[in-house]
Formats: sequence, C-alpha cells, structure tokens
Amino acid sequence: MADLTHLIQLLAKLPGLGPRSARRAALFLLKRRESLMEPLAAAMAETARRIRPCGICGNLDTADPCAVCRDPKRDAGLVCVVEDVADLWAIERTGAYAGRYHVLGGTLSALEGIGPEELHIGALLERCTAGGVREVILAMNATVEGQTTAHYIMDRLAGSAVVLSRLAHGVPVGGELDYLDEGTLAAALAARQTLKG
Amino acid sequence: MADLTHLIQLLAKLPGLGPRSARRAALFLLKRRESLMEPLAAAMAETARRIRPCGICGNLDTADPCAVCRDPKRDAGLVCVVEDVADLWAIERTGAYAGRYHVLGGTLSALEGIGPEELHIGALLERCTAGGVREVILAMNATVEGQTTAHYIMDRLAGSAVVLSRLAHGVPVGGELDYLDEGTLAAALAARQTLKG
Repeated sequence: MADLTHLIQLLAKLPGLGPRSARRAALFLLKRRESLMEPLAAAMAETARRIRPCGICGNLDTADPCAVCRDPKRDAGLVCVVEDVADLWAIERTGAYAGRYHVLGGTLSALEGIGPEELHIGALLERCTAGGVREVILAMNATVEGQTTAHYIMDRLAGSAVVLSRLAHGVPVGGELDYLDEGTLAAALAARQTLKG
Repeated sequence: MADLTHLIQLLAKLPGLGPRSARRAALFLLKRRESLMEPLAAAMAETARRIRPCGICGNLDTADPCAVCRDPKRDAGLVCVVEDVADLWAIERTGAYAGRYHVLGGTLSALEGIGPEELHIGALLERCTAGGVREVILAMNATVEGQTTAHYIMDRLAGSAVVLSRLAHGVPVGGELDYLDEGTLAAALAARQTLKG
C-alpha cells in the first residue's frame, strides 16, 4: 500500500483534487492501467523532460523559441503582455489574436517583495528598444496588482515610439447588467459605442 | 504544444477534473517540474507496473497476496465482502476492522448484463467451503443492486456453517434527524438500542 499512498499524496497536491478525490482518481487510474495510467505517466514524464520557457516570450513549450514565436504567419510587431502562461493560453483559445506574447511571470507586489527584477520586464523593454515592435497590448488582469504592473510598464515605455494599448473594459458577452459590478458598468457606459450617429 | 495538449487531454479524463481544471493542473505541474511533475510521473509509472489484484481477496496492491491477506495479526476467519476496492479502503480508514476482505468487483445487474460469473462470487464461495471462515460480513452498498447481490450471496451460503451478517443501518454519527430519509429513520427506530431496561 506504500506506493499507492505515495501516489495518492502526490495526486492530492494537484489543484482541484483533495485527499478524497485523489483517492478516487488513483482508483480510476488503477482500473485503467493500460488505457490511461501508463499513457498519462509517459506523457507527464516526457513533457517534464522537454518543457522549457521560451527564450523570447517566456511561454512554456517543448521547443525554444516556442511555437508562437516560431510561427512566421504571426505579427512580430504586435506584443501582448500577460501575467502568466495561463493567460496566454486563454487568449490563444479565443483564436482572435495573431500577434506574439510576452509573459511577465507575475505582477509587481510590494507586499510579497516582487519588484521589476523578479519579473521578465527587462526582457520586454529590450524587445521594444531592439525595434520591430509596433504595439504593446497590456493584457494584465484587471486587479490592483495587474494594473499597478501595467502602469509601471507604461512609465518605462513612455519615451519609446511603441504604441501602448489595453484590453477594453465592458459588459461580458452573455452577461446580465443586474449582476454586473458598478465599476464594470461605469466603464462600459463611458466607453459606449455609437451605433447610428 | 502537441505534447501539452495530449497531457491536458489525459488529465481531463480523471474524475473531478474537466477540461478547464485539467489545464490548471497541467500548468501547476509545469511550474513544479522537479518537486511534483517528475515524482508524480514516476510514482504513476511504478504503481502501474507493480499493481495487481490480490489472488485471494481481489484487493489491489503491489504484492500478491495483498498486505491485508499477508498480515498474520488479522483474523482470517472474518471476511468482509465489499463491492469495490474503494469500499475496502473506506473500511480500512476507520481502523476499526481487523479481519480480511473479499472484493466482488461490482454488483449483479440484469440491466447491464452482469451475472454472478462476472463477479468474484465463485472465489468467495470457495473460500467459505475451504474452511477457516467463521463469519461473512455482507458490506455491499445500501442500494438496490448492492442488496440484490447480498441476497444472492446469502442464498448461495444458506447451507453452509458460516455466520452471515450485514452492516447496521441507522442515524449517521453527527447526522440530524430532520435531514434523514424516512427509510433510514425507520431502520434506526426498529434497531433501537436499550440504554436502561
């Protein structure tokens, strides 16, 4: 049972799985040894062996530069700055973005002692001053930390010729006004778009 | 990204993880390559390689006979019959049982075409007729399928000298009567215990 207990303990560390669901997952795996447990173990080992951060943008991929940075069809002049790889994945899933990325690896936080040196901000400024970058989209989360980080980058790029933009605020598609917070609703009102002038 | 997509697809097959939480889990693993991802992959591969059903009771373990069947301190005359390995684990967690087990591997189900031959019922009857078994505790779930299976085993063991018992029905410890279903409450009333006669 020692191996099993060890496996369950490791599974329980995954987000979304507690001790109880880790046991369920372990049993699920044990009953699907060939169809799931062995392929999953192999995929995990293989990905762990090959994954690395992209030297250009910080995306995680099994190749460096990553698939996004290598893609010649993507606009190298457009750089979307995100906090985390998860945000990059979220934007990729929209299928609506054909530029490149820059992953900061977090946000500035005086409380947690995270300064600009802890984030990949230097590399972003280098990419911008090296030329070829036309526009930087600041796509940090709409949180205090995210927006503080965005302002810091705005300040640092103030003298450059690069155009800065941010994601639009507004009503989520499918969202109901009644459930929306006042800040979002006020932003949506202020940024209202004329339909017929 | 192909390796990553493959890993996420496999993770999403685990119970309790959907496509969204599988992505979160994958990213969580990628960021903890040495501390979690590699050990988990190794533990999974090792367990997949070594796990097997116990030839006596059907428990899953890395040894055959399993740790429970090998333990000389456990009463071999007492056999608790459960539907699934998960139920065995649940009873083991109580720490209140010092007998052996017999895992059926499911329940009888005319609907799903599961007859006695599909379950490890034959092996249970053999264990009982071979001698040495004093009591069989029927610990199937309190569902229609579980109780049907229990009745079938009762019938098959009717002629033998083995004592048959089942788990007590009653109010769950910490349970409130107001939230309890009528069947359980009726069973708890019928099986009431005298405190002072």
